[in-house]
Amino acid sequence: MMTIKDVNPNLIKAQYAVRGKIVDRAQELEAKGKRIIYCNIGNPQALKQKPVTFIRQVLSCLEYPDMMNMPEAKKIFPADVIARAKMIMEKNPTGTGAYTVSSGIAFIRKAIAEFIENRDGIPADMNKIVLTDGASKGVQAALTLILKNENDGVMIPIPQYPLYSAALALYGAKQIGYFLDESNSWQLNEKILEDSIKEAKGKGINPVAIAVINPGNPTGAVLSKDNMEMIIRFAKKYNIVLLADEVYQENVYLEGIKFVSFAKAMHDMNEKEVTLFSFHSVSKGFLGECGHRGGYFEVRNMSPEVYGQLIKLQSISLCSNVDGQIVTYLMVDPPKPGDESYELYKKEKDTILSELKYKSRVLGEGLNKINGMSCDVPHGAMYAFVKFELPHKKDVDVSKMTVDELYAYDAKRDFDYCLALLEETGICVVPGSGFGQMPGTMHFRTTILPPREDILNLVEKMKKFHEEYTKKIAV
Amino acid sequence: MMTIKDVNPNLIKAQYAVRGKIVDRAQELEAKGKRIIYCNIGNPQALKQKPVTFIRQVLSCLEYPDMMNMPEAKKIFPADVIARAKMIMEKNPTGTGAYTVSSGIAFIRKAIAEFIENRDGIPADMNKIVLTDGASKGVQAALTLILKNENDGVMIPIPQYPLYSAALALYGAKQIGYFLDESNSWQLNEKILEDSIKEAKGKGINPVAIAVINPGNPTGAVLSKDNMEMIIRFAKKYNIVLLADEVYQENVYLEGIKFVSFAKAMHDMNEKEVTLFSFHSVSKGFLGECGHRGGYFEVRNMSPEVYGQLIKLQSISLCSNVDGQIVTYLMVDPPKPGDESYELYKKEKDTILSELKYKSRVLGEGLNKINGMSCDVPHGAMYAFVKFELPHKKDVDVSKMTVDELYAYDAKRDFDYCLALLEETGICVVPGSGFGQMPGTMHFRTTILPPREDILNLVEKMKKFHEEYTKKIAV
Repeated sequence: MMTIKDVNPNLIKAQYAVRGKIVDRAQELEAKGKRIIYCNIGNPQALKQKPVTFIRQVLSCLEYPDMMNMPEAKKIFPADVIARAKMIMEKNPTGTGAYTVSSGIAFIRKAIAEFIENRDGIPADMNKIVLTDGASKGVQAALTLILKNENDGVMIPIPQYPLYSAALALYGAKQIGYFLDESNSWQLNEKILEDSIKEAKGKGINPVAIAVINPGNPTGAVLSKDNMEMIIRFAKKYNIVLLADEVYQENVYLEGIKFVSFAKAMHDMNEKEVTLFSFHSVSKGFLGECGHRGGYFEVRNMSPEVYGQLIKLQSISLCSNVDGQIVTYLMVDPPKPGDESYELYKKEKDTILSELKYKSRVLGEGLNKINGMSCDVPHGAMYAFVKFELPHKKDVDVSKMTVDELYAYDAKRDFDYCLALLEETGICVVPGSGFGQMPGTMHFRTTILPPREDILNLVEKMKKFHEEYTKKIAV
Repeated sequence: MMTIKDVNPNLIKAQYAVRGKIVDRAQELEAKGKRIIYCNIGNPQALKQKPVTFIRQVLSCLEYPDMMNMPEAKKIFPADVIARAKMIMEKNPTGTGAYTVSSGIAFIRKAIAEFIENRDGIPADMNKIVLTDGASKGVQAALTLILKNENDGVMIPIPQYPLYSAALALYGAKQIGYFLDESNSWQLNEKILEDSIKEAKGKGINPVAIAVINPGNPTGAVLSKDNMEMIIRFAKKYNIVLLADEVYQENVYLEGIKFVSFAKAMHDMNEKEVTLFSFHSVSKGFLGECGHRGGYFEVRNMSPEVYGQLIKLQSISLCSNVDGQIVTYLMVDPPKPGDESYELYKKEKDTILSELKYKSRVLGEGLNKINGMSCDVPHGAMYAFVKFELPHKKDVDVSKMTVDELYAYDAKRDFDYCLALLEETGICVVPGSGFGQMPGTMHFRTTILPPREDILNLVEKMKKFHEEYTKKIAV
């Protein structure tokens, strides 16, 4: 029988805190009847966000195309839903049950290229777009393409969404962490990037890429165009690939702040050297269609030879799921003014986004008022990354710890804190150590997704818990 | 900019002939207006197999649950469809748009365990079952778990479905090929297995698993229980994991032959040491729901510690797509006698399976009659693996070639043959070298899936092509 000694050591090393021990414990407690508020993961429809009607109506027709010719269907579905579904059937006559070409259905890739052209005012090539089972699978494909051996490293933010660190561990490559600047709304800092890449090179690591998450996960930050231009120059200087995780592009809440894609920023700089991957998904934004596992990536500045290898990689898993491809299509080509579905679509979209905006503010401001907690009110994405302080026990002297010891000490403390929060209140958040944090600091990540009526209650519970825990731990 | 030198060398090595150059060429020709018969891939719905109505009706309801409460829905859907969809909503209230737990929705895993219990008369554990985006992703997960370093090797059949060789190349591990016995209906042969594993060990390779495809792809063979028992004893003797690819378990055509699962064979031998993965899929059988990317694997004889690592691996990609999970559920828990949908379901199932049986016979017998071609009439699965002979040019002396030279010579010849077949006739098949074959032999794999009316025509075209090509090449 296989034993743990027979397991891939890279897998054993990989950690993915978003679904780690605390979530396992939450499921145990839930099974015993405790009410759990899952703030650990950006899974909107699990927290009562309703699906956008148009998307689901079209899918419903496509799953059972015979229905569209029944007279009753006209009473159930708006005319533009049926017309759209029929158009999709015409362009993809093999339907939702057949494999597609490896890169995804051609007309959908064309629609994505047009979406990028319209969003950014720049040209886009449908033959440099690949549909994926969610953005995670796209990131994994990109990393598989670019990691040659255990000496290669990818620069990843600290804090970061742990998909990156988990995938790097799994593929046996090196993480080159770069701290985000918490004092400057979590923007990237050129000096920190330079120091970080030099330190890695000094250790003999070969940096091949930099991953940037914008809007940020877990930070909720939105990068300024200046900051992005600095990053592009940096990638060019060191001839490394830019991995732009842009799945939260629709989730920007702060007035006066706008999402800019890296494709657009590169185009405006007339940058034609830096190889770019940009990732998008149907799971976030206002669709929140996580369960459909749809998404795409677009690449720029890549030779046909390299691109061919990427397509071969996709072909080994055949293709992404067709429903996910269709949801991606409907995301990039939604109902237009004048279409029968448009009003409802717009209302649902606006409601979801304004609700998220409201909740990000109420949650962020509420947590900021708690003594010993602070966070940026999220500018975008679906999370607040909350810094918190705890007293040390009398016999602990952090000034005598090495950086590694301090990091481990914080990691144990933020884990214990989040576990106690779960046990006491049923609120499930992820410890900052699961994302990475500056040694000597502690954080947790919470989503802003619970229903409006739960948010204030959540802040109240956290306040009470934090006060009591602080007292208890000081003994 | 990235160049080919920056690409993962393992990816460059990986080959996946089912979607290789010949298919690219077919797509080019099709774009120019040529009619292509895609016999390269088991993609039934792309070749006009209609989806099973019950499956799609339930999915249609689940994508747009509000519909179920509309009076018109009762006119469109049988009562048991609506009842089933409502039951699924109750057990999975977050619907098709939310991430599920990493291993898949609990009640579906329970239904799969019951399906295995009913199919095999043996106990099964829902907590050793993982839902996946099709079987390919399951195989990749298993290999990721068990491959520790470049010294580890997996025994794979020759010929094999090239997912295995591609994944092993990609993960930087070794292939340990074992020939299937063409003279004995492609069964496994103990002496060949022993010779193969000894040779690998002699080269310093560490064998960690054996992959067995039953019913066979590309061979169409169905293993006898005796043969399976030999394989299990072999896996036990060498303490290697058994990877049982059983996606064609519903596709058995020959009278008197029955599919037996490796789980059942192991249970009957009271075997409790060999770690087993068995893979299943919604893409084959009679559903042919390839585009939905659904499937599962079950593991046996694995410690909780190892299993925990497997679940962590799944969690890094969050979960498989929910529609695919639901199709998997409907596959293992179909309508029962007495249900309103039962008669239609049974009729569709029987029609598809008897059609496949008819086509496997007509195609197999037809090809066998062609001078210079021979194959086993497929016992199962969806393919015929056809041996063919061509004359050598006068200046070629194969007796002077090394085994490697001979293999390369055959590979070029079977590739050229399949390309010419495509150009002349529009029939797209995959060269035997894409699956592996005995040096000195050539094959191609064709699916049995084209519509009944095309099959005889296909045989006729192949006959004519083979005669002409044989004449041409002899010059």
